[in-house]
Amino acid sequence: MTQSFQDWMQQVQQDVERALGTFLPAGTTVPHKLHEAMRYTALGGGKRVRPLLAYASGDLFGGDAGVLARVASAVEMIHVYSLVHDDMPCMDDDDLRRGKPTVHVAYDEATALLVGDALQAQAFETLAGIASLPPARLVSMLRLLAEAAGSSGMCGGQAIDLDSVGLALTREELERMHQLKTGAMLRVSVILGALAGRDLSPVELEALGAYSKAIGLAFQVVDDVLDATADSATLGKTAGKDAADNKPTYVSILGLDQSKELAEQLRREAHEALAPFGEQALRLRELADLIVQRKA
Amino acid sequence: MTQSFQDWMQQVQQDVERALGTFLPAGTTVPHKLHEAMRYTALGGGKRVRPLLAYASGDLFGGDAGVLARVASAVEMIHVYSLVHDDMPCMDDDDLRRGKPTVHVAYDEATALLVGDALQAQAFETLAGIASLPPARLVSMLRLLAEAAGSSGMCGGQAIDLDSVGLALTREELERMHQLKTGAMLRVSVILGALAGRDLSPVELEALGAYSKAIGLAFQVVDDVLDATADSATLGKTAGKDAADNKPTYVSILGLDQSKELAEQLRREAHEALAPFGEQALRLRELADLIVQRKA
Repeated sequence: MTQSFQDWMQQVQQDVERALGTFLPAGTTVPHKLHEAMRYTALGGGKRVRPLLAYASGDLFGGDAGVLARVASAVEMIHVYSLVHDDMPCMDDDDLRRGKPTVHVAYDEATALLVGDALQAQAFETLAGIASLPPARLVSMLRLLAEAAGSSGMCGGQAIDLDSVGLALTREELERMHQLKTGAMLRVSVILGALAGRDLSPVELEALGAYSKAIGLAFQVVDDVLDATADSATLGKTAGKDAADNKPTYVSILGLDQSKELAEQLRREAHEALAPFGEQALRLRELADLIVQRKA
Repeated sequence: MTQSFQDWMQQVQQDVERALGTFLPAGTTVPHKLHEAMRYTALGGGKRVRPLLAYASGDLFGGDAGVLARVASAVEMIHVYSLVHDDMPCMDDDDLRRGKPTVHVAYDEATALLVGDALQAQAFETLAGIASLPPARLVSMLRLLAEAAGSSGMCGGQAIDLDSVGLALTREELERMHQLKTGAMLRVSVILGALAGRDLSPVELEALGAYSKAIGLAFQVVDDVLDATADSATLGKTAGKDAADNKPTYVSILGLDQSKELAEQLRREAHEALAPFGEQALRLRELADLIVQRKA
């Protein structure tokens, strides 16, 4: 009998927690404070959306558990580093993340800067440490991760986001920003999870790309809806920040009801993109549902 | 006839400048400001010590020029990102670098943060883009770069440096800090340059490691001597910062004369380490001399 989605998700989250604990240097290793701070921010929380996507995709393509543990840890390390830097005073200046004081509050700004820098390097080290894949495929995976993390991916999206404060973006401009800022890392999580199993055909790559694009946008639309409607305790981070920071959001452009409708439409698009994979794509479908229906 | 060292160095610096210009996204590519700022800080200056080491080592092991251009650009991008973050107000708070306003001064702090983050990703993307090496060797090179850049390398050394302000370090503690902070990236520049040519025997790896260790320490000893004796205009950065920041240095521990003697001793050690390679290691020997005899 197939495991329930809840059980599967919990299992993956536990596996990822353990894997991160293994691939991050021990807090007893010099320099202690840096390593403790890396573990403080990376362990013990988070929805682990990117690892879940990698495992779901790996499930579909027959990825080995040990390989997926490294893939999932690598994408999560990139995500966590981006949160640490994003929360710093010169960026969003946020004190609360995942229900805990942010790194620059719990430690100091210089440590937060180094924690983010070291986590990015650790992500590449962790991925490059995969020993059981064909090296040529692993090189491609490392290149894809670098592209998704860099200036034509996540960092580029953050830069556009910064420059958009106070501007009246069109829906298209907002979409392009989010496709870089969050979409690129969600997409690469799906693709790397698949490549943990085997090489992909162009058709498979396109299907996974369409799925990723839909859930990436859905993720952001729901984020904007939650920021406008949920409270800080539920979110584990400061709610209402976007409006307070005068940032363009789907809610500010489309309104609340149309944003919710858009999220539902993107969920359907994600399901349709998975059609070529049939029943086997169960976990990826369930994750699309989760992303749209989550409350935090 | 063999090219003079000065001509060789100038040629490499020109090649690196051109390579960086190619491997960094164009300033006309979205997001413009981020890409402009990446180019502002990475292009048009710098001693290019790490690229010179990579080319010198590549010269010894028969590395292809196209491969070396990517190796040299990758190590320089890591170095430049570390300078950008190091200069930020929460770290060294420096306004001047390579004779130009630092990124957070010329742009803003958030941009400086993203420029550093994006340059690190670009380094891995650039190295992973090498198409002509055996993929297994390239994976090793990517892993070595990640280790040298991360918490057991450069970032780790910076963390120890931060925690050492105002402390009376022993010479051994100071040495360990610098072996991580600058030594790890100098070493990996030499090793990656060699691997651009061919796989290394354990004896060759050990010899290059000993050379790298000696020039890494020499580099730092000379840095400390120059910080205590040169002026800001000559250095292209603020002189006398170490004493003003109450940082432990070789000069504060050993005094000026003994520091100069130590640098000279390390130069001899570097030459001795290269003995197995005979006359062929000319450029690496000349670089050891340059590192000790430089005036800025």
